[in-house]
Amino acid sequence: MKRIDINCDMGESFGTFTKGNDEAIMPYITSANIACGFHAGDPAVMERTVQLALQHQVNIGAHPGLPDLAGFGRREIAITPKEAYQLVVYQIGALSAFVHAAGGRLHHVKPHGALYNMAGKNRELAEAIVEAVVRVAPSLVIYVLPNSELQEAAHQRQLTTATEVFADRTYQTDGSLTPRNEQNALITDTNQAMKQVLEMVENHTVTCTDQSKITMKPETICIHGDGAKAIDFAQTIYTQLTQAGISIQSLK
Amino acid sequence: MKRIDINCDMGESFGTFTKGNDEAIMPYITSANIACGFHAGDPAVMERTVQLALQHQVNIGAHPGLPDLAGFGRREIAITPKEAYQLVVYQIGALSAFVHAAGGRLHHVKPHGALYNMAGKNRELAEAIVEAVVRVAPSLVIYVLPNSELQEAAHQRQLTTATEVFADRTYQTDGSLTPRNEQNALITDTNQAMKQVLEMVENHTVTCTDQSKITMKPETICIHGDGAKAIDFAQTIYTQLTQAGISIQSLK
Amino acid sequence: MKRIDINCDMGESFGTFTKGNDEAIMPYITSANIACGFHAGDPAVMERTVQLALQHQVNIGAHPGLPDLAGFGRREIAITPKEAYQLVVYQIGALSAFVHAAGGRLHHVKPHGALYNMAGKNRELAEAIVEAVVRVAPSLVIYVLPNSELQEAAHQRQLTTATEVFADRTYQTDGSLTPRNEQNALITDTNQAMKQVLEMVENHTVTCTDQSKITMKPETICIHGDGAKAIDFAQTIYTQLTQAGISIQSLK
Amino acid sequence: MKRIDINCDMGESFGTFTKGNDEAIMPYITSANIACGFHAGDPAVMERTVQLALQHQVNIGAHPGLPDLAGFGRREIAITPKEAYQLVVYQIGALSAFVHAAGGRLHHVKPHGALYNMAGKNRELAEAIVEAVVRVAPSLVIYVLPNSELQEAAHQRQLTTATEVFADRTYQTDGSLTPRNEQNALITDTNQAMKQVLEMVENHTVTCTDQSKITMKPETICIHGDGAKAIDFAQTIYTQLTQAGISIQSLK
Repeated sequence: MKRIDINCDMGESFGTFTKGNDEAIMPYITSANIACGFHAGDPAVMERTVQLALQHQVNIGAHPGLPDLAGFGRREIAITPKEAYQLVVYQIGALSAFVHAAGGRLHHVKPHGALYNMAGKNRELAEAIVEAVVRVAPSLVIYVLPNSELQEAAHQRQLTTATEVFADRTYQTDGSLTPRNEQNALITDTNQAMKQVLEMVENHTVTCTDQSKITMKPETICIHGDGAKAIDFAQTIYTQLTQAGISIQSLK
Repeated sequence: MKRIDINCDMGESFGTFTKGNDEAIMPYITSANIACGFHAGDPAVMERTVQLALQHQVNIGAHPGLPDLAGFGRREIAITPKEAYQLVVYQIGALSAFVHAAGGRLHHVKPHGALYNMAGKNRELAEAIVEAVVRVAPSLVIYVLPNSELQEAAHQRQLTTATEVFADRTYQTDGSLTPRNEQNALITDTNQAMKQVLEMVENHTVTCTDQSKITMKPETICIHGDGAKAIDFAQTIYTQLTQAGISIQSLK
Repeated sequence: MKRIDINCDMGESFGTFTKGNDEAIMPYITSANIACGFHAGDPAVMERTVQLALQHQVNIGAHPGLPDLAGFGRREIAITPKEAYQLVVYQIGALSAFVHAAGGRLHHVKPHGALYNMAGKNRELAEAIVEAVVRVAPSLVIYVLPNSELQEAAHQRQLTTATEVFADRTYQTDGSLTPRNEQNALITDTNQAMKQVLEMVENHTVTCTDQSKITMKPETICIHGDGAKAIDFAQTIYTQLTQAGISIQSLK
Repeated sequence: MKRIDINCDMGESFGTFTKGNDEAIMPYITSANIACGFHAGDPAVMERTVQLALQHQVNIGAHPGLPDLAGFGRREIAITPKEAYQLVVYQIGALSAFVHAAGGRLHHVKPHGALYNMAGKNRELAEAIVEAVVRVAPSLVIYVLPNSELQEAAHQRQLTTATEVFADRTYQTDGSLTPRNEQNALITDTNQAMKQVLEMVENHTVTCTDQSKITMKPETICIHGDGAKAIDFAQTIYTQLTQAGISIQSLK
């Protein structure tokens, strides 16, 4: 029986500003990537989200981002590898404390937004992030874009990775995500998103924006928790994968 | 032989803004309270300061503060006990990660500035901070103002405390520090500061601003690392205590 | 014919975090108090909100707050009068630039949250805020709690004020708002809120939490733009006041 | 008689973190570029620095930067032209208020650090910054790198510019500054810096890192106010230019 993990970025509210639908999405996912206070999240949100994830027996991951609350961590900042290392150590540490305080265990790390993209293409940044994990918590699984620099840097240091695919993002022929500022970057139609997901999970391929097919073998699927249709989509993907005989379960 | 610990707030630079003289002060202290990014410090400064403390075999403490970089954590903010708990969990976690990454071990916690003062007077805030330590790292020693609410809250939960006195701050008859905005709050004369220190360490009393003597039994003395005469004073206190037959050594 | 101004705090989104329903509320108000980037708002939000207010021919006010995005400016911070002066100068200046760039004119100032409350009770803070207005733009109207220190400080310097009442907050017998952390602080029932509004506008009294009536003569009514029922309430107050023969119009 | 303006970045302290030697440098300069709270500076520092500049009859400029206090505005952030426009409007407005409150008049604008570099190379960003000046205060002079996109964008909109050269930075043959992360970017030797300054002011050329000479005609020279030798260098450049018969005077 095929199986897959479903992950979602969580805890991306800040102070009185709410974002996402964490409580409603939790039942449909198996991994929660929790923001750590740099691109989103704050100590109160982190505590709450960790508790929510534990209640739902969802794997908890640190979701470190660039220090850019106004830009939600989506704007590239020209940080050095050393700065990347330090940002990731800091953020993993902060989230770990909440997980530990609540009696849980941190399971994975997934860089956020621009940091994820930069770590996918820039080997030095990727190695710095890997180094942070090696030194702070080497048992953590790193969620990575398949064939990215981050995946390779993690393997070089014998860290475990999980290849991540996106339900609602389109792919280019080199396996990279179509950048968000391009018109066809996002898949807004539920059927199309489900079709992409099923192709990836069942056939281990994805149909790119130019209609060519490339190999894409997912271990975890990222869904998004904010946006008008997020809850509906979470239910749909959960239901349709289950109906297709695919077991939705946490990575061990 | 009498013995005493000397602690100093460290790692209070931020980005390209430097504060203090950490490298020059380290040889004369036995405990470094390292800022955690809220009132001062940032991931780069924290990494550097942890390494420096380890090189000098100085005990490392977390020095959490209020989220007020512009006010250096010295302005009271009307936070709830729950917010205090969350701020302290977050900051201990962040610093712990750097200590762990560098192969060290976190030794103590000392709240900073307004958070220290508020925790000294407000039992609910004190209990919230203690709860954070209990849940994240109950083996940490809490540095406290003698007879403060923080000390009592810590003892109630069986945490270890170290009573802290200040070399360059004057005392009121209730054992509290003269508030910084009052004229005679700071002792700027080295001889007077040393006289106060020796009275506290040798006689377990302190002469208050109204010239009365009260009991004051120190386990650790706080010196300040910034200011024009900080390095000189660090040397002086180290030398004069040693000459007085007092052993300057870390708390176990 | 009786007339009244309706004001609403606006532009309180931040980056990708949205708050309120500015576009939907604008048609029902005559004054928009626009956040200036400290407790909420950012340059992008400010530009957008200024344009929206101009399109709806709504008076634009600066809505300066404490530097506490995480606490939405609702937590008191122990700032000095000088700091209050500087915060207000800065924020009025920043908003003015957007108003000027869009071809408009700044009309009023209304401090936000904890700054509003502190300026209501603390004369030195009130005078500092007034001084900021005197020096930067003395023609601005200051929106004030009736009988507050801010009102008196403004009158002392010959500034124009507009007395503000709240549709959805209860009053204490001394004319102050019931603090938000008390149970009966907020009026959540629309009928009750409208009853309070009509009593204030028509009779110039308000019924306090202890059922006594005190004088309360409003020049502007504050409604809130966030919350589930905000849009409905904006429509209701607009419609019911109009039906009661009260003209909803901007302060000159 | 040849004449030249000398400008220096000022007001780059933040809260209790001090940077630079503003008071000591002021006597030797004719333009102060004052940080506006994004890369450095805060409302208190801005007020103080504006007063200092007025006392010394030094032209006051806004010195807007990227929102990156930790990186001191030196790290490129992938902002859009619209965001650049908004950041500059906001910061000019905030500083203007302090200048106006103190009875002065804003004279110029000079983007800081990475924003200056990006605006030098990227026409869309340059045009966005120019648009901000056009809409907020079109009489301001824009200080520009000679032959930069910012200079051309300013001229296109009929804004006045002043070509700026650096005393302590080396030049590449295309007229750009050697990037700070390259080894020979900074001139640390006072004699070499003075030689470069005199060559530029007297001959309107500069000797590049490859020893070739290119045209470089300065209207204002930037000196740096922080660093160990800043005060000495400010005195030296003032004295030597005066001795060389060059009049140091403000741009009109």
